[in-house]
Amino acid sequence: MREINIGLLGYGTVGTGVAKLLIENKEILTARVGAHLNLKWIADIDTETERGIRLPDGILIKDAHKVVSDPEIDIVIEMIGGEGIAKDLIVKTIENGKHIVTANKALLAGHGNVLFAAAAKKGVDLAFEASVGGCMPTIKSMRESLVANHINAMTGILNGTCNYILSKIADEGITFQEALAEAQKHGYAEADPTLDVGGFDTAHKIAILTALAYGMEINLKDVFVEGISKITPLDIEFAEQFGYRIKLLAISKYENGRVEARVHPTMIPFDNLLASIKGTVNAITISADAVGDILLYGHGAGMMPTASAALSDIVDIARNILSGAVGRVPALSYQQENIRRIPILPIDELVTHYYLRFSALDRPGVLSTISGIIGKYGISLQSVHQKGRKMNGAVPLVMLSHAAREADVKRALNEINALDVVSNEAVLIRIENEKLD
Amino acid sequence: MREINIGLLGYGTVGTGVAKLLIENKEILTARVGAHLNLKWIADIDTETERGIRLPDGILIKDAHKVVSDPEIDIVIEMIGGEGIAKDLIVKTIENGKHIVTANKALLAGHGNVLFAAAAKKGVDLAFEASVGGCMPTIKSMRESLVANHINAMTGILNGTCNYILSKIADEGITFQEALAEAQKHGYAEADPTLDVGGFDTAHKIAILTALAYGMEINLKDVFVEGISKITPLDIEFAEQFGYRIKLLAISKYENGRVEARVHPTMIPFDNLLASIKGTVNAITISADAVGDILLYGHGAGMMPTASAALSDIVDIARNILSGAVGRVPALSYQQENIRRIPILPIDELVTHYYLRFSALDRPGVLSTISGIIGKYGISLQSVHQKGRKMNGAVPLVMLSHAAREADVKRALNEINALDVVSNEAVLIRIENEKLD
Repeated sequence: MREINIGLLGYGTVGTGVAKLLIENKEILTARVGAHLNLKWIADIDTETERGIRLPDGILIKDAHKVVSDPEIDIVIEMIGGEGIAKDLIVKTIENGKHIVTANKALLAGHGNVLFAAAAKKGVDLAFEASVGGCMPTIKSMRESLVANHINAMTGILNGTCNYILSKIADEGITFQEALAEAQKHGYAEADPTLDVGGFDTAHKIAILTALAYGMEINLKDVFVEGISKITPLDIEFAEQFGYRIKLLAISKYENGRVEARVHPTMIPFDNLLASIKGTVNAITISADAVGDILLYGHGAGMMPTASAALSDIVDIARNILSGAVGRVPALSYQQENIRRIPILPIDELVTHYYLRFSALDRPGVLSTISGIIGKYGISLQSVHQKGRKMNGAVPLVMLSHAAREADVKRALNEINALDVVSNEAVLIRIENEKLD
Repeated sequence: MREINIGLLGYGTVGTGVAKLLIENKEILTARVGAHLNLKWIADIDTETERGIRLPDGILIKDAHKVVSDPEIDIVIEMIGGEGIAKDLIVKTIENGKHIVTANKALLAGHGNVLFAAAAKKGVDLAFEASVGGCMPTIKSMRESLVANHINAMTGILNGTCNYILSKIADEGITFQEALAEAQKHGYAEADPTLDVGGFDTAHKIAILTALAYGMEINLKDVFVEGISKITPLDIEFAEQFGYRIKLLAISKYENGRVEARVHPTMIPFDNLLASIKGTVNAITISADAVGDILLYGHGAGMMPTASAALSDIVDIARNILSGAVGRVPALSYQQENIRRIPILPIDELVTHYYLRFSALDRPGVLSTISGIIGKYGISLQSVHQKGRKMNGAVPLVMLSHAAREADVKRALNEINALDVVSNEAVLIRIENEKLD
């Protein structure tokens, strides 16, 4: 039986999952692939901690460079993370003519263009299914299943930590800080949660998907990012009254040559399936011309789901090697020479619906002053709700706008925030009204 | 630029969609695949009807045999349907060493084992993504994305016609016959709806998926099938009161070497995402050891979604040809020599929860008689509901059982149906309580 030699870099959570699948699910892998996927090396600085897997003697070593330069190794799995040593090792792997599988979204979002070009030039695969959406077959579906489609839009819940926190706030009426503490207690959030709750992890993912969907270079720096730390139970409660749930969404659209790519808390109607996605799971809707909408749902993180995604890449590459295929599917779906540089729309030019909440003193004329300013900037309102309940002497005044330009909304809010009769900064939450096709 | 020559058999709805994508989305296909997918022939007995596509002159012909024997053709797309001429043409295509793409679930469910073996022997691909779940990437996800997983279960809404009808009954309280007429009016159901509403189309699909999931031969004849024609607004209403919706589900499970594969109306809890799937769309949950549950959602039928799935197969094969790959992924996911023959559990041995509705005369002792018979067969009840409302002099008596063996339940129902105090045959609807992981 033929053998494919695999070297694993990083024996942390996901690395352990990869080793576990290669060893414990060996029989089913062999039955399907028709070859032996041999885990030849695992490199990690920590060779002592017990991970609960029986490894063959001597395969766990400290020297990652030994792995990427071993001529017998066919595929290298990078599960170190970060943009430092991981990047150097990926570059070295490509230079050595080996295929590489990674889950490193931060690295790809920041340096993917260079790395993909290097891999294409060398004729090796750089596979990254595990970098977005864990076990949801996101990359494969876009690159292979939807290959004959023009992809028009993607809307995703791509960070389980944020979705868990927002679900907690919604279900239990607790504050963001309390929900974050819960998430940390259960191991769903890091001690420093900024990457997740700040929306940056989600931005890495949508930057990669945006490139893949529309055939463009990855452009992380122009993806708009707003995190969830300002979401309050009060806004979630108002949202529910209007028939919306608040989710941290990654939104990407392509229309008339213009690309939107943004990450922010978003109100979506109850009957959008994404509104029903609770807890740590992920889901994404992909809209395309032939299929309409498809939706994928699954665990977006965690040891085994992420390892399963990495294994799908490993097997894809193994099947290429076994069947004699070279350069079968380009990393970003499009042939390298067809990848364009398309600017991402600045957030100020976004046109969408807005939820605006003001803390207004309960005095005559306040509503008229505020709505006057809104009208001055050409923003029309679909509804206005003033609730009797006072908070610190102020009354929440909630407005839902028709489609408006973000720059105009911001200018109006600046003027309103400066009013004496307004006590706190206005809350702005964007609304997505599109239904699944 | 390299060229892949494609011959299309059948220029009906889906065939037209395939031609449309090959012609109208040619630019994006070329940008992604790096080759020209050339639609060389379309064969159909009807060469006259206008399909709204500008075809190159002379490619629409009547003679399908000319297509499958043209030495220049690389890939044949069978969109004729049925088990007659379609089968002959597929056999001929394989004999001629050409790859074949089909959406023909009835043919594969009935003759897949022979056809897959023939294709494997000849070294050609027989691809069938479009046969199950339309544009949902069902086959690809199971065969490639979940390749390192033991798949344990699948639960799917795989027939849009039935889902539309059941949604209509639930939302509007109309009868099955009325909802069917609506479906026919909108073109969602055929004039003879038996294949859909009888559950047979769903059975074809789950027979194929069951083989793919567990590495076994396709075994359609042992798949249990029950259609939706007996579902009443009354049972849907009761279901809602207990927190359930009724869906026509395809259910497939693998546990301790035993395989379940069955199609029947099923009660599922509201909070199962499948309960929220309304109208003509499809959705499937796949449970596997590494990933937990994934869910796919999308249009399960229709011209363009089905054509999109066929195109994903066409491109897969084109990429194989272009990259020099031969026999890259086996049709049933497992290498041909690892495909086993596993029996499917007879429905009598099924153990599940049951909803039972009796039409009992409102007399003293009736409840005790009926529940006595139930108890005699070892079936324990989790709840009993007797509603005051009379229908034809009888009162609906509803019972939800704990896990029970189907043979025991049937025996109890036979005995109860024979009672004088029971006016209509008892209604039995199976319940699936599993939640998404």
